[in-house]
Amino acid sequence: MAIALLTDFGLRDPYVAAMKGVIASRCGAVIHDLTHEIEPFDVFGASFFLREVEGWWPEGTIFVCVVDPGVGSDRRIVALESGKRIFLAPDNGLLTFVRADAAWSVENDALFLPGGSATFHGRDRFAPVAAALASGLLADDLGPRIGAIERIEYREPVYGDAVQGTIIRIDRFGNAVTDVEVDRVPFRPFRVRIGANEVGRLVRTYAEGGEEPFAIIGSSRTVELSCRGGSAAARLGIRTGQRLELLRTV
Amino acid sequence: MAIALLTDFGLRDPYVAAMKGVIASRCGAVIHDLTHEIEPFDVFGASFFLREVEGWWPEGTIFVCVVDPGVGSDRRIVALESGKRIFLAPDNGLLTFVRADAAWSVENDALFLPGGSATFHGRDRFAPVAAALASGLLADDLGPRIGAIERIEYREPVYGDAVQGTIIRIDRFGNAVTDVEVDRVPFRPFRVRIGANEVGRLVRTYAEGGEEPFAIIGSSRTVELSCRGGSAAARLGIRTGQRLELLRTV
Amino acid sequence: MAIALLTDFGLRDPYVAAMKGVIASRCGAVIHDLTHEIEPFDVFGASFFLREVEGWWPEGTIFVCVVDPGVGSDRRIVALESGKRIFLAPDNGLLTFVRADAAWSVENDALFLPGGSATFHGRDRFAPVAAALASGLLADDLGPRIGAIERIEYREPVYGDAVQGTIIRIDRFGNAVTDVEVDRVPFRPFRVRIGANEVGRLVRTYAEGGEEPFAIIGSSRTVELSCRGGSAAARLGIRTGQRLELLRTV
Repeated sequence: MAIALLTDFGLRDPYVAAMKGVIASRCGAVIHDLTHEIEPFDVFGASFFLREVEGWWPEGTIFVCVVDPGVGSDRRIVALESGKRIFLAPDNGLLTFVRADAAWSVENDALFLPGGSATFHGRDRFAPVAAALASGLLADDLGPRIGAIERIEYREPVYGDAVQGTIIRIDRFGNAVTDVEVDRVPFRPFRVRIGANEVGRLVRTYAEGGEEPFAIIGSSRTVELSCRGGSAAARLGIRTGQRLELLRTV
Repeated sequence: MAIALLTDFGLRDPYVAAMKGVIASRCGAVIHDLTHEIEPFDVFGASFFLREVEGWWPEGTIFVCVVDPGVGSDRRIVALESGKRIFLAPDNGLLTFVRADAAWSVENDALFLPGGSATFHGRDRFAPVAAALASGLLADDLGPRIGAIERIEYREPVYGDAVQGTIIRIDRFGNAVTDVEVDRVPFRPFRVRIGANEVGRLVRTYAEGGEEPFAIIGSSRTVELSCRGGSAAARLGIRTGQRLELLRTV
Repeated sequence: MAIALLTDFGLRDPYVAAMKGVIASRCGAVIHDLTHEIEPFDVFGASFFLREVEGWWPEGTIFVCVVDPGVGSDRRIVALESGKRIFLAPDNGLLTFVRADAAWSVENDALFLPGGSATFHGRDRFAPVAAALASGLLADDLGPRIGAIERIEYREPVYGDAVQGTIIRIDRFGNAVTDVEVDRVPFRPFRVRIGANEVGRLVRTYAEGGEEPFAIIGSSRTVELSCRGGSAAARLGIRTGQRLELLRTV
């Protein structure tokens, strides 16, 4: 049994260490860090991070996802079951891309730490609930089943005579990752228009690319903008959420 | 059995990876990272980090705390027992807030790596001693019992007609965390004076706050200064260790 | 059985979390992070990181080392056996300092994820191969045995009337770490010449040092340049790979 953590807490502060202590005090599950480096309050980025990662984890994994600008407000905590794995998160869109087999509103406050704070649900609610699930608690004991959860605002890519998509992430290397699945682009070759720039070259491997920005197929078979020896995002002035267009090159 | 690590080593350098190798070579304990992102040599900050975290960890945990500007000098290594958990640290104030049930000077150099360095006690002394404890070594085999350990210079908050406290941490979000426990403040409402600034608004949740700095009750029920969409610490020019005052608002 | 990861992926991006998911889905090995903070594409730095760390880890450890500027090109993946431990890496010099008892070219693509990407061998090849080894796969099932692997360009230090060496790492504290083993320097006292600067003082512990740059014997018994309260590397304009000279002080 494993508990996998995804937060925007960073590791400078004692938040993650406190959460792990609560979990380790209450169950024997292995604790994995997915990341704690989500940009503070970036629910959009966290939802895409989770989309790229969750499918690789085994049945039984309990995901604890805490990017929570509304902590202390009346936003719910939700639990999703998906492919025999459980996801806990604030109901703010973070789980947009997790297909729900069932969902619950986590309201059973007998599961929370007594006298918990209004500002640190990661430690006071998410951690003990995850530990209880790891110890065998049934999801129906979390609270009532619910129908729908919140979803982020996001336009799926459009695949037509032109293709429209969105920058979903700037990675550590400065690659600008899009949501455009290359296998659904109905034409070749293509060029990418983003803001005032166009990127015309498509390469197969980073090794083939040069210092000028190029397009490449990333690890999830989506289009990325990259360049050698620098940040393509900085070179092209790209930010997360920005729209882009693929045009057929004649 | 778990070993929990707290250092200022960061993860860019091979120090933590070497420590973990020594531990993994000598015992089967689970290794947890509390943090390695303590500001280099910041014993003050590390002592408060530990204060916020240690109580959440289970009996049997062995804490290895290495923030050690005096490594190689004649500062001792100490072991504390507290609530059936063990804390290893240089005797420099790092354990100021851990209540000691018993204390030892770690001097039994049969426990250290042979031929160890003068500059990396984390790997050469702390790691093998922690592994030995995890393998069942009795604390009395570490070295002689001692009475007192070093403590950091720090004035406890004063709760009176005005309340005086200290900034103990700037977190990743730019929140300035104080040591003022809100339940001991004898008046309401209050305003906070820090340097040349005053913060007049106290809110219950981050969601209620706005872009102007506000006070809020943090996860340890202490007063924090925060603002939405930015760093309150930067806005107010706050640094760790700075004193502040709470005044009754008429 | 443990799997130890060393990459330049950082933790902001979903790469490490995906790798760990693949491993956790396929075996029960404990997963350790050596580091994910190698400078992007810095094979030189990664090879020295590994040199300082690997000897501390126990028999049976499987090292997964992914710093891979040539991913998708025709560079091989290699496996080394060394002291009953296994090292997986791209064949680009990363394993320069691991003494090989035997080596294989990892070519058995039945071990890779089906339909894997050309850009993310960490997840699609390294992770499932490591999991297979942890589950008992024999190294001879990875692919053919090979003789030699790639090595980085690097001149060993010269110990003579003067001593010549190389800066192999700038650590988090701004210490400039060299490859000069102090026990092989045939004279005392010495001064260090690097670029246009000379450092004349050699101290035994950081505590003895002052604000002026000094030389000190580091945790691997190599010469380091350091100073108190700042970065010696920045003060002296030092970069990784730079050559330096030790001269006898008369």
